[in-house]
Amino acid sequence: SATDLLEHDLEHEQVVVANDPASGLRAIIAIHSTALGPALGGTRFHPYPSTAAALADVLALSRGMSYKASLAGLDLGGGKAVIIGDPATQKTEALLRAYGRFVESLGGRYITACDVGTYSEDMDLVARECSHVTGRTEAHGGAGDSSVLTAYGVFCGLRAAAESVWGDADPGAVLAGRTVGVAGVGKVGRHLVRHLVDAGAHVVITDVSPAAVARVRDEHPTVRVVESTEALVAGELDVYAPCALGGALTDTVVGELTARIVCGAANNQLAHPGVEKLVEDRGIVYAPDYVVNAGGLIQVADEFEGFNFERAKGQAARIYDTTRLVLERAKSDGVPTATAADRMAEQRMLEVGRLRGIWLR
Amino acid sequence: SATDLLEHDLEHEQVVVANDPASGLRAIIAIHSTALGPALGGTRFHPYPSTAAALADVLALSRGMSYKASLAGLDLGGGKAVIIGDPATQKTEALLRAYGRFVESLGGRYITACDVGTYSEDMDLVARECSHVTGRTEAHGGAGDSSVLTAYGVFCGLRAAAESVWGDADPGAVLAGRTVGVAGVGKVGRHLVRHLVDAGAHVVITDVSPAAVARVRDEHPTVRVVESTEALVAGELDVYAPCALGGALTDTVVGELTARIVCGAANNQLAHPGVEKLVEDRGIVYAPDYVVNAGGLIQVADEFEGFNFERAKGQAARIYDTTRLVLERAKSDGVPTATAADRMAEQRMLEVGRLRGIWLR
Repeated sequence: SATDLLEHDLEHEQVVVANDPASGLRAIIAIHSTALGPALGGTRFHPYPSTAAALADVLALSRGMSYKASLAGLDLGGGKAVIIGDPATQKTEALLRAYGRFVESLGGRYITACDVGTYSEDMDLVARECSHVTGRTEAHGGAGDSSVLTAYGVFCGLRAAAESVWGDADPGAVLAGRTVGVAGVGKVGRHLVRHLVDAGAHVVITDVSPAAVARVRDEHPTVRVVESTEALVAGELDVYAPCALGGALTDTVVGELTARIVCGAANNQLAHPGVEKLVEDRGIVYAPDYVVNAGGLIQVADEFEGFNFERAKGQAARIYDTTRLVLERAKSDGVPTATAADRMAEQRMLEVGRLRGIWLR
Repeated sequence: SATDLLEHDLEHEQVVVANDPASGLRAIIAIHSTALGPALGGTRFHPYPSTAAALADVLALSRGMSYKASLAGLDLGGGKAVIIGDPATQKTEALLRAYGRFVESLGGRYITACDVGTYSEDMDLVARECSHVTGRTEAHGGAGDSSVLTAYGVFCGLRAAAESVWGDADPGAVLAGRTVGVAGVGKVGRHLVRHLVDAGAHVVITDVSPAAVARVRDEHPTVRVVESTEALVAGELDVYAPCALGGALTDTVVGELTARIVCGAANNQLAHPGVEKLVEDRGIVYAPDYVVNAGGLIQVADEFEGFNFERAKGQAARIYDTTRLVLERAKSDGVPTATAADRMAEQRMLEVGRLRGIWLR
């Protein structure tokens, strides 16, 4: 809880509570680390049941952003913000702009972006009070929909994982004929399906939204549909790609999974600390979530140089190399892949972060 | 507690937790209001028993600063900071400078100063990382010891209160022959004694520090000393001047007080909400604490124009006028003086604060 925020070993540099009763704004901005640069992370607009729940979420999410940015090779630290409320009824111009003034008050130590419950149009409003905003509409120099490069990055990471498992195959055709289960075909999953179909994989999908399923089937008639994530996981798979909510890898799921690889776009796929060992024991290669889903972050970060899709895509393609390095590090250190990724992210934060100690001006 | 910080009707604009494990910094900065300008308030360095206790203190103190700055006629909002720890053992250059970086990160929305546990030399260190610092040493352009003008302001407020009670007396001699009890003759109380002796009052003092008592007796041999605050309060007094810890006006103290006036330098003199009514019922004129003790704030605020003691003293002298207005407002509104002061402070925050709504650039 927040009461004892400072009594335990808080890792975060800064936690900011913003309150503006007149507009109804109640927000928490967490800056986990600025070792590599300003802390970037989206603004989640969600009706949390309590401040404690909001705080726990923003602390965990901002920490994840530090690790994601580090392994994506970006000069960014990790941050995140949550606005407590129902975006459907409470999101107003005044509230978003009040929020923008608090983001501005941090002088660029925190840079915001879209997240669950916020959209590019919202960032345009935030930007009317604040310079530290990414993910704006294309009309305002933003990178637009970041799900395209997120999906592309996941696909690149998946190729690296597939080559490590089925290394004797022709690298260009390593996914040909493999069965890949995609749980969640919304914004990101849908684009991932396209990459998989193009690579010659057999794709099985599931989604709680019939509309999302129908859209994918219209685009790719060969894709097979199952009723639920449970049914997807229970079936014969070579690859499992969780692209929906967090916590996909529970003990039960890991126990029954036939897939040799887990690689998807969802955040926080490990349901609890320790699942990564179970995954390893079952001989499953897990491409860590934040390593492979960094394409969206890479996309918005590219806005700092004036957004260029091809340049951003080139950087997202490097998720292939990073994933290979993570899998190799796991092997050489004798640790789960998630642990190897954490070590590499921490190493870069430490080694590159200390360089500011060399005084320049 | 902080857990439900946003679940109740939080008045404060912003609460910032700063954490730097390497230097041991654990701090909370509270910005109550910036309606009138940047939030100014000192940094208290104290070994709070819990984060909750630190948070409660910084929230209350920062709120008090908003009201104090408003009635002092300053273009400042209210803020305060607490550093959790023992200043005797934990105050290091690294910690103070880490703190300075977090103050700097707020871009001037919060301006710091000395408070319990921090000194001008500490502010010089904070200022090496941060532009938003007052109360620095005189060598660095600071206003130096703010207790001189704090005491002067209290004396000005006391004259106004005395004239309202003994209005038929010669204004220049309204305190001549009156018995004034001063509880606490440390930094501020000591200077107040000098003003009182000069005005011809009979002064009775008490202090837990024999050294402080001895110093005052050396300077003013006519001053009478009593053993304790209890003894001071129980004796015959015309004026009671609490200049030590907060909470001086308990139900018991108010019940037995013979003084017609309470006017001192201590913060938060009302031990609990509602005591102000008891004070009024007993016919005691209470010169609200934050109205009369604003001289120190006026002094550090003067640094923004390049400190000039005479100019600052002139502004502190206006505490006489403000106190008169507060007492008149209490009479005309039929409310306790503390309530009248709050109303006037809130009125200025509202009326002057809204002027930024008139767009200029």
